[in-house]
Amino acid sequence: MSYEREPVSEALPRGFLAGAARAGIRPDVDKLDVGILYSEVPCAAAAVYTSNRVKAAPLLLCQEHLADGRAQVVIANSGCANAATGEQGLADARQMAELAAAKLGVRPNEVLVASTGVIGTLLPMERLRDGVSRIELSAAGGPDFARAIMTTDTRPKCEGGRCGHQGEEYALWAVAKGAGMIHPNMATMLCFIATDAPLAQPYLATCLREAVDASFNMIDVDSDTSTNDTVIALANGLAGGEPIDAGHPAAGAFRSALTDCCVRLAKAIVADAEGGTKVIECTVEGGASLADARRAAREVVRSLAVKTAVYGCDPNWGRILAAVGNSGAALSEEKAVISISAPENSGVCVYRQGAPLPFDAAQARACLAAREVHIRVELGLGEGVATAWGSDITEEYVRLNSAYTT
Amino acid sequence: MSYEREPVSEALPRGFLAGAARAGIRPDVDKLDVGILYSEVPCAAAAVYTSNRVKAAPLLLCQEHLADGRAQVVIANSGCANAATGEQGLADARQMAELAAAKLGVRPNEVLVASTGVIGTLLPMERLRDGVSRIELSAAGGPDFARAIMTTDTRPKCEGGRCGHQGEEYALWAVAKGAGMIHPNMATMLCFIATDAPLAQPYLATCLREAVDASFNMIDVDSDTSTNDTVIALANGLAGGEPIDAGHPAAGAFRSALTDCCVRLAKAIVADAEGGTKVIECTVEGGASLADARRAAREVVRSLAVKTAVYGCDPNWGRILAAVGNSGAALSEEKAVISISAPENSGVCVYRQGAPLPFDAAQARACLAAREVHIRVELGLGEGVATAWGSDITEEYVRLNSAYTT
Repeated sequence: MSYEREPVSEALPRGFLAGAARAGIRPDVDKLDVGILYSEVPCAAAAVYTSNRVKAAPLLLCQEHLADGRAQVVIANSGCANAATGEQGLADARQMAELAAAKLGVRPNEVLVASTGVIGTLLPMERLRDGVSRIELSAAGGPDFARAIMTTDTRPKCEGGRCGHQGEEYALWAVAKGAGMIHPNMATMLCFIATDAPLAQPYLATCLREAVDASFNMIDVDSDTSTNDTVIALANGLAGGEPIDAGHPAAGAFRSALTDCCVRLAKAIVADAEGGTKVIECTVEGGASLADARRAAREVVRSLAVKTAVYGCDPNWGRILAAVGNSGAALSEEKAVISISAPENSGVCVYRQGAPLPFDAAQARACLAAREVHIRVELGLGEGVATAWGSDITEEYVRLNSAYTT
Repeated sequence: MSYEREPVSEALPRGFLAGAARAGIRPDVDKLDVGILYSEVPCAAAAVYTSNRVKAAPLLLCQEHLADGRAQVVIANSGCANAATGEQGLADARQMAELAAAKLGVRPNEVLVASTGVIGTLLPMERLRDGVSRIELSAAGGPDFARAIMTTDTRPKCEGGRCGHQGEEYALWAVAKGAGMIHPNMATMLCFIATDAPLAQPYLATCLREAVDASFNMIDVDSDTSTNDTVIALANGLAGGEPIDAGHPAAGAFRSALTDCCVRLAKAIVADAEGGTKVIECTVEGGASLADARRAAREVVRSLAVKTAVYGCDPNWGRILAAVGNSGAALSEEKAVISISAPENSGVCVYRQGAPLPFDAAQARACLAAREVHIRVELGLGEGVATAWGSDITEEYVRLNSAYTT
């Protein structure tokens, strides 16, 4: 694969500018809370949204503005999710788009809007308007934009790199927030991706869907699905060249780069989970289908029984097997094999041939004590392979989520 | 409804005997751990099992022995779930049935077997055999049987009462364990129901399925489904009279009594949840269908965001709305109404007409501080009504489930 990560992901792709300001959306929180990502030329654009039936106002607006598959601006705020806010919320989201459009001289339907934070409160439009007026856009503004969308994230999450094929080179930059949230799964995650590659819109949409399915749709902190989840990709084509669709020689390189970038951000979200101390990576091989492998891997990292066992360094493989059994994936107890390992520990096989297996419990505990814990489940039924990532669950998670008051 | 609860549910229905012993299945745990429930005559019998694809050996045996819809004995143990134990596990379950059959002079296929406790360990058959030999059956043995199936439950859970119709009177007795478990959702719940009513087997199976759907299938502690969940009903007919099927004048009374009994036990399980401090009761009205009302109510009591908010007395209705939206149930934000109340507090409406609503936060907090918290969601879309019960989630839950080691 020709994707190369950059050590510091501060540089935006050609023709993109970004910036942020502190509007004071939550007056008690002293941080950047409104940001703009802007392309000097119109972009092919695609988005993936939450599956929650309660959809926040900015999502509804994005769906409307993306009907033509084009956009030029993203405006995003933290501190208020603008969800469950009715007609007023939709009017406010529309006004956010108009503020950005007027500032940048584009039409409002070229602007996409995203919000994250407390659900069920209205945006303070006066403060927001003032904040937007103070945003200064620059090619170095990516990190500020990344900070502006954080809620209780402890660090900004950026990824950037280059990919290409035979002399064509494209830059890719992406930012995400989430999982260290005030309202867990109310406004869990946002991700914005910018590239100068000349993507044909339908192919961009296909690649984005595929990348999201392998990354953000494979992580879990607390098994709720937010009302505001949004991933947006903008491709402005300033790298030049023929439009990239499925038949283009660079198509595979771009697709891989996009998925790789999303996977890294998805893992960064899990690593920053509220109260989390470990990342649990579960790989399922030999699933009867890809869908089966995915649902089994997701259920293992979702299970509270598994999360608490990992937190407690308990090599309790029965909880893993039960999670697979609970996932709906086809399963033969005789064929399943479960192993536990860690990055610098080859680990132990804990279950095989449908029956308890003597294993080195001390080594299993050592794997579980690592910052990243790997669980491998071989189902032996087919070709399906998938990986999912989840945080462990701790007393601190409960404290943070019960002590917080709207 | 003619069902009357009895203040102390110790008396078994006519013709039933029970007893228990300490076999020492877990030598470190000093409690009764094997019990028998026996009917002097063969019974119409029905069962409902876990939906987990990993099914414990005793479940597989029950399915085999219940093929004819008849049974006379239940033998159950705690301390070992006999799950993920392969061929040896199935042989051990079979031997448990044979031990009980030999002791009571019935055929082994008249015996149903249930196990609960640690997954992935083999039953200590020598100790079990010795324990079974020491069980003394009596009409007053119900409470001992109830204690023998407890794992980390803090109290036995029994229900008993009488129901009837125009002079026919039937006794109903039921016992359950669960939700205060060592392995959460590995061996979550068992329930055994005995009645002297002369049930036709197909109608008993119908009533049991319906009762389980409205009770045990509507509770949540930690959203995993066990490998061992089993509910068994035995009806020995010793009350006399015509067999009860759907056309019998007492059919409705029996059906209601059975559901009522199961609902009480289901709530008792939630009230005894590990680390739990409150019972969250969510009633959804106006669902587009019964299935929609059920999935919405279940998702509200399952959501970690709701559980932690209730634990922290935070009137965070956005988490409730998001859970409904996440359930898959049809939802109109404009039509939905959410209220929070408690048994002695009429409560407050927190959401109406698709937008934030000013409400008395102090009163909402007072409701959330109660031992039992009532959440009502009116969807305004149809006739579907359902109630679900869940525990809150606390630091103590995490501690109990991470500190415990197999």
